[in-house]
Amino acid sequence: MKSIEWTGERVRLIDQTRLPLQEVYLETTDYREIADAIKQLKIRGAPAIGIAAAFGFALGACEFKGDAGLEFRRHLEDVVEALSRTRPTAVNLSWALERMKGFMQANGGRSVEELKRLLLDEAKKILAEDIETCRRIGQNGAELVPERAGILTHCNTGALATGDYGTAQSIIVTAHEKGKQIRVFVDETRPLLQGARLTTWELMRRNIETTLIIDNTAAFVMKQGWIDVVVVGADRIASNGDVANKIGTYNLAVLAEKHRIPFYVAAPVSSIDFQLSSGEAIPIEERDPAEVTEGFGKRIAPLNVRVYSPAFDVTPHELVSAIVTEEGICRSPYNETIPRLRHSARD
Amino acid sequence: MKSIEWTGERVRLIDQTRLPLQEVYLETTDYREIADAIKQLKIRGAPAIGIAAAFGFALGACEFKGDAGLEFRRHLEDVVEALSRTRPTAVNLSWALERMKGFMQANGGRSVEELKRLLLDEAKKILAEDIETCRRIGQNGAELVPERAGILTHCNTGALATGDYGTAQSIIVTAHEKGKQIRVFVDETRPLLQGARLTTWELMRRNIETTLIIDNTAAFVMKQGWIDVVVVGADRIASNGDVANKIGTYNLAVLAEKHRIPFYVAAPVSSIDFQLSSGEAIPIEERDPAEVTEGFGKRIAPLNVRVYSPAFDVTPHELVSAIVTEEGICRSPYNETIPRLRHSARD
Repeated sequence: MKSIEWTGERVRLIDQTRLPLQEVYLETTDYREIADAIKQLKIRGAPAIGIAAAFGFALGACEFKGDAGLEFRRHLEDVVEALSRTRPTAVNLSWALERMKGFMQANGGRSVEELKRLLLDEAKKILAEDIETCRRIGQNGAELVPERAGILTHCNTGALATGDYGTAQSIIVTAHEKGKQIRVFVDETRPLLQGARLTTWELMRRNIETTLIIDNTAAFVMKQGWIDVVVVGADRIASNGDVANKIGTYNLAVLAEKHRIPFYVAAPVSSIDFQLSSGEAIPIEERDPAEVTEGFGKRIAPLNVRVYSPAFDVTPHELVSAIVTEEGICRSPYNETIPRLRHSARD
Repeated sequence: MKSIEWTGERVRLIDQTRLPLQEVYLETTDYREIADAIKQLKIRGAPAIGIAAAFGFALGACEFKGDAGLEFRRHLEDVVEALSRTRPTAVNLSWALERMKGFMQANGGRSVEELKRLLLDEAKKILAEDIETCRRIGQNGAELVPERAGILTHCNTGALATGDYGTAQSIIVTAHEKGKQIRVFVDETRPLLQGARLTTWELMRRNIETTLIIDNTAAFVMKQGWIDVVVVGADRIASNGDVANKIGTYNLAVLAEKHRIPFYVAAPVSSIDFQLSSGEAIPIEERDPAEVTEGFGKRIAPLNVRVYSPAFDVTPHELVSAIVTEEGICRSPYNETIPRLRHSARD
């Protein structure tokens, strides 16, 4: 099972809104369908969104008719515009589009036909690199997990959220592969229930001991001493270590601090926004109230009720015990350790 | 709209599992239906459960055929057994049954027919007293609410959870009646969504500004400075001030402490278990995993997933800024102030 792959002719992605009960795949050569899939969360998870956007860019290139370089570039501006306005918080989306644009510029002398093939290769390379990145995050992070550990996680940070393996979940999976005895508590993660629907499904397929809880139970589970580490992913990390991630992450960070449980964030370096000095400036997407009021297929609140539904929150760096990346583990003071990552990643 | 009332012939209660979209009433003379209604949460909220149990006791008495006092008492033991095993955490249930049993004993010389009538009167008296209690909780607690205030609440503590007015919600309603400018944020309260379904519905009927959030958003809303007080109810309070309440309450208490927001618990004195020295000993009901995995007509988790679903958690007294009862407001040290309540309530 892959979240997203290239079949040789099309992009193929598993429709995550249908899991865990149905495995339905979307195959397309149309970048507009990729944009819709991102917007509707058929594909989600910061790294997977970046990969999808890169393939969207390449598909947009491939559909261009003709050989006029200027028109080709204008067409690709429209493609980038459509892809970039799908979801505002994950930095990987703009990171992947910037990389594709940079690749275009670096290959300015090539013909349109050549560029189409090369852009597709570049998207495949982003996918392959992401898989390798996730493996390394897992290797780096597994050492933070005790030999016997209760682990609490939030949302979905698994293979589905990335090219493969996952980010925070790669740490869990790697710790399990290394023979550590782990027991994972999975927050269901309202409103869209990625924990209940996706994370449990992925962990159970790997025979990892998994217990589903509602988000409200996190503190009580910690208080009973069942949790040794919390691991979560990130949609965007500021250069001071502030972390934007799925709504409820900041809750967990406060609860972990209160119970003296280490709180680890796992993400590729591409999720770090080095331009951003703090989390205050991260744009927070607000979602459709219907995801709260009728998300389970049945209306659960009065008509016309006012709803506040931010998709993400920001966890201040003081609450983050460590940030695990493919380049290594950063700890406080993040405004010193994070910029160093940038250089090592670029070497 | 009343959560529970006596029609002159039957007990009538609104089926809270059908709200807010349908107003369906259950009318019955059968205590078994009352027991089922409590178990299935058609009626819920600690005070309302106590009232329902008292009426169940009286209905159980009324259905007895014959005039043999000993058989009558044995029959009532079965009735108490059926009612008391419905839900283990709320102390009001056993409080109400104990009061009905005590009333029986105090009227040992009466005929079966006389007792039937008197027991029904006693149940009606418990209902009337609860309404008065809730009004007084509201009056006492309203002074804790600033003139302009953002209030966060959890679960449902309104008229539906009591004879009328509510407990924590009575404070909100009374503050609003006194002209305070309040804005209420309502946790949806997974798994059974009493906040989304019931609290929003009640507050909107009273034209109180209401915003529904998922439980995960509580910390983020606090961080933005929108919350001045948190008010919640209680299912059982130990004599040291530890509070058992709907799962997620302990989460909120930790978050409120972190953001230096006062955390108030409102409950009638009948919710205090004076025998219990701490919250550790409060039995915590575990609910059916299906409430988490398919609570809203659609399965949202893999088949066979393990689920941990406690209905309540325990908030330690150190996190409770005050406990508001009909007899006044208690503050720390609770092991001194709570026992005093007992005496004033008995005067």
